[in-house]
Amino acid sequence: MSFARSGSRPVGRIVVATLSLLALGAHAAPAQSVASRYKATADRIIAESMKDSSAWNRIALLTETHGHRLSGSPQLERAIDWIIARMKEDGLENVKGEPVMVPHWVRGQESAEMLLPRRAPLPMLGLGGSIGTPASGITAEVMVAQSFADLEKRAAEARGKIVLFTFPWTNYGETGAYRRQGAIAAAKAGALASLIRSVTPYSMRTPHTGSMSYDSTVRKIPHAAITPEDADMIARMVQRGEKVVVKLTMSAQTLPDAPSRNVMGEIRGSQFPDEVIVMGGHIDSWDVGRGAMDDAGGVVAAWEALRVLKRLGLTPKRTIRVVGWTNEENGGRGGAGYRDAHKAELDNHILAIESDGGVFKPLGYGFTGPDAALSKLAEIGKLLDPIAAGRITKGGGGADIGPIMALGVPGMGLTVEDSRYFWFHHTDADTPDKLDPREVSQVVASLAVMAFVVADMPERLRPAGK
Amino acid sequence: MSFARSGSRPVGRIVVATLSLLALGAHAAPAQSVASRYKATADRIIAESMKDSSAWNRIALLTETHGHRLSGSPQLERAIDWIIARMKEDGLENVKGEPVMVPHWVRGQESAEMLLPRRAPLPMLGLGGSIGTPASGITAEVMVAQSFADLEKRAAEARGKIVLFTFPWTNYGETGAYRRQGAIAAAKAGALASLIRSVTPYSMRTPHTGSMSYDSTVRKIPHAAITPEDADMIARMVQRGEKVVVKLTMSAQTLPDAPSRNVMGEIRGSQFPDEVIVMGGHIDSWDVGRGAMDDAGGVVAAWEALRVLKRLGLTPKRTIRVVGWTNEENGGRGGAGYRDAHKAELDNHILAIESDGGVFKPLGYGFTGPDAALSKLAEIGKLLDPIAAGRITKGGGGADIGPIMALGVPGMGLTVEDSRYFWFHHTDADTPDKLDPREVSQVVASLAVMAFVVADMPERLRPAGK
Repeated sequence: MSFARSGSRPVGRIVVATLSLLALGAHAAPAQSVASRYKATADRIIAESMKDSSAWNRIALLTETHGHRLSGSPQLERAIDWIIARMKEDGLENVKGEPVMVPHWVRGQESAEMLLPRRAPLPMLGLGGSIGTPASGITAEVMVAQSFADLEKRAAEARGKIVLFTFPWTNYGETGAYRRQGAIAAAKAGALASLIRSVTPYSMRTPHTGSMSYDSTVRKIPHAAITPEDADMIARMVQRGEKVVVKLTMSAQTLPDAPSRNVMGEIRGSQFPDEVIVMGGHIDSWDVGRGAMDDAGGVVAAWEALRVLKRLGLTPKRTIRVVGWTNEENGGRGGAGYRDAHKAELDNHILAIESDGGVFKPLGYGFTGPDAALSKLAEIGKLLDPIAAGRITKGGGGADIGPIMALGVPGMGLTVEDSRYFWFHHTDADTPDKLDPREVSQVVASLAVMAFVVADMPERLRPAGK
Repeated sequence: MSFARSGSRPVGRIVVATLSLLALGAHAAPAQSVASRYKATADRIIAESMKDSSAWNRIALLTETHGHRLSGSPQLERAIDWIIARMKEDGLENVKGEPVMVPHWVRGQESAEMLLPRRAPLPMLGLGGSIGTPASGITAEVMVAQSFADLEKRAAEARGKIVLFTFPWTNYGETGAYRRQGAIAAAKAGALASLIRSVTPYSMRTPHTGSMSYDSTVRKIPHAAITPEDADMIARMVQRGEKVVVKLTMSAQTLPDAPSRNVMGEIRGSQFPDEVIVMGGHIDSWDVGRGAMDDAGGVVAAWEALRVLKRLGLTPKRTIRVVGWTNEENGGRGGAGYRDAHKAELDNHILAIESDGGVFKPLGYGFTGPDAALSKLAEIGKLLDPIAAGRITKGGGGADIGPIMALGVPGMGLTVEDSRYFWFHHTDADTPDKLDPREVSQVVASLAVMAFVVADMPERLRPAGK
């Protein structure tokens, strides 16, 4: 509701006029930029955020207490309960879990073994959403396909085989396509199952899971990831003229949808409580590692940002809401559920901020929204110069805020020094030690400054009614 | 036999006199240093070594065809048979496997699971030589000991528990002590089993195996490594006041000694065939990964060095012998067996070179032997300047050549850029992709130049009779 502030409240004419001027960023403080107006406050926020490792400690406590948190798992719901209890202890307002039904895929037992040319276990992870194999497994010769084009060219060879895609890491979009679409392509060619070289630039014999798709027009076949080391070994064996036979066994299955929740808490705005800056990450994870980097870190850093503001006694004019969205990894139901539950307030969602690229050294934000807002955010970004985290670039967002961004909410994603992000992504190695306490604190500082200033500055980042 | 050359052969007086002068490095080529005399040859060797990836390819072929190669395993003996066949095809001389009896430890099935404060699997590797647990496993509370001193101080707490040593990585000697001696210290304090934080500076949830010891004066208890991530998590849990209970199950056992072999082949020297430069690495490995870096690379690089010399038609005056020693990892029987089998020839072992630090970018050699020889080697090192691999430093050797060095054979170890060596050491991630083909070729070049010049130069690096 874009008239909430100047229309629907019983405020006098003069107050309304003043607020309107402030909202337009007009003459209220002509000589003072946002950056200079908030410099001292931002410096206090940064100092308070950086004073200890409490954010890192909370990531460790959350992920070590509950472990990984796949949609549908009891661990995820226990973690949400835990967050709700802690947020209440922290004195956040409107703390709650908003119900969302989520897909419920379970991995079960799984293994891959090379039988020829010699017996050797192949560390593997089934891909999320895959069907299982028969209980006796699928044993078949491996056909190595270097790419979708290679498979298409040699499609006749795939019939009755296990197709192994060995497409190497280039980037997440291109290489990830084999994880997402590989089973469809392999099934079209008549394969019994499909394997991929894990989607990663680096491996210590580490398989990576992640989401995958089927297509209603082709048969479903099991789909799993093996390590880059083993994929490349098999490719070399085939190149040498050897016949490679693999046995794949998976008991994965998809159960009926299960209840979950988006978890949230707020600092209510002092003047415009219905105007909301929403920020956070996703609380679900894959069922490996501890989902520390992906994405407990994003949730906890946003949450800690509110704690820092509370400790400093800083109540912004608008509301800052922290959300741990559920089911980002294999369904996106949390982001969609938030959109649906908050549809009536979305015109007053001033900004949505997502952190889902790992809470490494923050660099800035990528923003999607009006150009005037981009300029204003670039100005606010200068407040993050002390931690070299203020680079605001055009274009950005996130999977969880995508659904509300599609309805016009300006959105942005935290950008970080992510050179090792895909080393740990969706693996057993996603544990809190991969995050540096100091860098996590910098993320907290960045989120706290950005959210506070946008929530507190007189002008509305997103003009009312737009 | 130090008189072999000038005494026992039917050579005339003048020839003997000339050779003696050469042997003393006296006036034979007064104006020409070894470095300048061999410059052109060394450049040819380097160019030939660097022209393709054949050394890397052979490391991959060997390790992918046979897998890992623990002492006592059929894979090790198959790999040795394979090397003998290939060395013969390569036209090496005196190709053979010299019998050595080796320890035969088998890992069997093993697992570790955290039961409290929540259930979670703990990736682990039993340590080589450990006894197993009862079939039902050992379930006990974990006592975290930060160091031997910490355990000693709190010894009373260890009784009936599983002691977990969380000593972090400092260096292989210091941190490795917990792997080697941890079971003894924990058993002395009355523990039921001992665990260590894996001996590594970096982990992607990767457990590291390796050798361990018992002491006849204390009870044997099972001893295993968990990942740094899990060790640190457990330490934090205990710090938070949580009780941690782990179930450890291992069916490891030590079988009677098994037959194995040191595998070797030569280029016989044209003038002094009984004078030997011996070089190589160990052909056994731990029973994880593919033992590519540790140490198929060392064996193959030395072997490839001989192939390079043969392709160039370079036959040195002395014999160059390549050895793949067996059982370096858990017994050192190969090195000791070589010493015993070649005792009569050791006075004519001019130099022993070992490569067991990973065939990464070569930097030079660390040498243990007479100072005069060190100076000469430093001169030869200059020939490796084109690949920046000629830094000769005092002190060095290797586990396999240790026994003959103890009897006076000058020895040296290849030094390399080893910053990631301990990331992969004794893990499933020790696969050929961790090695760079170009760097492997540089190691081949380094070994070929060094061995050839020492084998071919008129003067004997190690004076006869010393």
